[in-house]
Amino acid sequence: MTKTENKSKTQTPEEKREEMQTKISQLGSELVKEVDAGDNLHIDIPVRGSANVLFDEKQKKILLGDKMSKRYLFNVAHARRFMQTMLVASYVKKDLLENNLTATLRDLYYAKKRTIKGFKEDTIDEQKESDLAIVDLEVAMDSFRERLHLRAEPKGRMAGDLTVLDRVRNKVDSIDLSRMGSGGWAVPSIVEQIEFKDVGIEYVLVAEKNAIFDRLNEDGYWKKNKCLLMTTAGQAARGARRLLQRISTELKIPCYCLTDSDPYGWYIYSTMKYGSMALAHESNRLGCPDLKFLGMSTSDIEHYDLRNVTIKAKEVDIKRAEEMKAYAWFKSKEWQSEINLFLEKKLKAEIQALSSKSLQYISNSYLPEKIKNQDFLP
Amino acid sequence: MTKTENKSKTQTPEEKREEMQTKISQLGSELVKEVDAGDNLHIDIPVRGSANVLFDEKQKKILLGDKMSKRYLFNVAHARRFMQTMLVASYVKKDLLENNLTATLRDLYYAKKRTIKGFKEDTIDEQKESDLAIVDLEVAMDSFRERLHLRAEPKGRMAGDLTVLDRVRNKVDSIDLSRMGSGGWAVPSIVEQIEFKDVGIEYVLVAEKNAIFDRLNEDGYWKKNKCLLMTTAGQAARGARRLLQRISTELKIPCYCLTDSDPYGWYIYSTMKYGSMALAHESNRLGCPDLKFLGMSTSDIEHYDLRNVTIKAKEVDIKRAEEMKAYAWFKSKEWQSEINLFLEKKLKAEIQALSSKSLQYISNSYLPEKIKNQDFLP
Repeated sequence: MTKTENKSKTQTPEEKREEMQTKISQLGSELVKEVDAGDNLHIDIPVRGSANVLFDEKQKKILLGDKMSKRYLFNVAHARRFMQTMLVASYVKKDLLENNLTATLRDLYYAKKRTIKGFKEDTIDEQKESDLAIVDLEVAMDSFRERLHLRAEPKGRMAGDLTVLDRVRNKVDSIDLSRMGSGGWAVPSIVEQIEFKDVGIEYVLVAEKNAIFDRLNEDGYWKKNKCLLMTTAGQAARGARRLLQRISTELKIPCYCLTDSDPYGWYIYSTMKYGSMALAHESNRLGCPDLKFLGMSTSDIEHYDLRNVTIKAKEVDIKRAEEMKAYAWFKSKEWQSEINLFLEKKLKAEIQALSSKSLQYISNSYLPEKIKNQDFLP
Repeated sequence: MTKTENKSKTQTPEEKREEMQTKISQLGSELVKEVDAGDNLHIDIPVRGSANVLFDEKQKKILLGDKMSKRYLFNVAHARRFMQTMLVASYVKKDLLENNLTATLRDLYYAKKRTIKGFKEDTIDEQKESDLAIVDLEVAMDSFRERLHLRAEPKGRMAGDLTVLDRVRNKVDSIDLSRMGSGGWAVPSIVEQIEFKDVGIEYVLVAEKNAIFDRLNEDGYWKKNKCLLMTTAGQAARGARRLLQRISTELKIPCYCLTDSDPYGWYIYSTMKYGSMALAHESNRLGCPDLKFLGMSTSDIEHYDLRNVTIKAKEVDIKRAEEMKAYAWFKSKEWQSEINLFLEKKLKAEIQALSSKSLQYISNSYLPEKIKNQDFLP
């Protein structure tokens, strides 16, 4: 766990903001010192990419290793990116943190696209460039973009017996997630400012699909079972992942994940739990190592007699399953036999296949049974 | 306006449900009469597809014409679909309406996929088939799928000084949309049951993008400007479209739409306003004829000096613009000159291009100015 996170529970939003401003100022001061000393300005940046990605068994996280690279101003291959990283740092500090505002990666790109007055040359040609510079700044600061006040696309909804305090600049709202009707509360892009109050939940159930959220919400599942219901609406967005992590670690309650029975479902699960190779630098902030896979599993297909409502696996599914079987984070004997069973049966099943039994079967039988028997994959 | 809608304001959710059950029972009784008379069972179904789609200038809606077709049981080309329509009708009445439950199209498909006991033949092979049968039932009932208790994928968020009453079966929640923090309230799949209370809003601003919702929510735009802020997060989902229509007609307040300046933005707008050709049978229930296009317009690019942050239109954009120029619902002189200007300049602009001026420019200058000057496209 990084320093930033150890502090995060006790820090106020103002303190979090000030800490980041100080860090950026320190980076600036160090560069000024280098200028004064006549050195070639540089920033130390952890190496990203597969050569520096490892799976930490103990922490259960896909993490960056300790390889570092130096980015120099006076190096033809580095100069442009160095300048862009400075543009990003300046925007984050002066435009965002100092004004207590947040922005998207796209806003930043537009704001810093052409910054040299009188020139027709763009300082940032494509958003891809500023996005990379943002990640450079994130890892150089040992932080993550939400702390830099940069928003990602939000996705996901929640309902349950939990009240959260959320603040939008100076306005604080107390939001009772048990009174959200059929819609639910939309999970925000940035969740650092959220506080948990009036906790009446005993576990979290994260469903991959909106349809499952709607089904369980209509059945009053979360009320009867004292759980917080959450949907990621597909691959989980950063806000939803971070919020799940915070609930798991701060409220210390179990979290269960419900996806379709197929390699894509496993991937959604493993990304929420361990992080991903592409975003290994974010696993510390976004991973939820205690998350468990509730289902749907390949053995559920036999157990719940769903054979008639399965989907034949395609070549691409088989290939993906074989790849995943080799990943260090799928090496437990439970996952190895799950993947082997899939490769043997070659069948996928959607959670909604349970509707072939009856609409409320999932709420009244499947979920209570799985949870009572603690029938999870690790 | 159809009978269903005229009644909708005064009908309770229970009455709406009973009305639909009665309609389905009537369809059944008529078929039984045909059986007794030894007739070839049939259902009258309005013809869909471009041959029966028209633009109603006065109502400002893309509608189905009055061409009808008959679907017979004893006709090799019709029999399977006839049977599937009956399966759908039975599921809707017995499983959904009678139990006051809702389901997705996928749930229905799984529930009715294999219904002949002992046979290995599916009654519904692919979901496409049951989806078509559902639309048949919708149009035959002169209704729409939400009244059949069928849910579509929900999308969209809201915030503003408006309290809605939403009910999930027998539980009624009072939801104050001015206390939704940074997330907002997630717009549900079905909004028929929603009632509006404590209306403190003077207009609705619908933004195509989540990023714009977040920007305006953070700036307290909806509070300062007494509006309801809504994002469709891309092409609007059915729930968001229907809710916008209900707010527009029931609260009688102006609704403004904010998209990128490109043919895709115009399409998102025109679908919300007029409906679409593919779903012409739904325009009555989902269209919002009083919606106005606030921006971003091609002339905004010059007016707000955004030339440096535009995107060059591609061949596909030009082609799309030319197609749209020919549509009856883009024939107003304002839209013709907007499209001509686009074809001349060949430039697209995103709303976020305004961030090149300053992050809060949209909240403090662009929107207030456009609204003050009533600078809209029809």
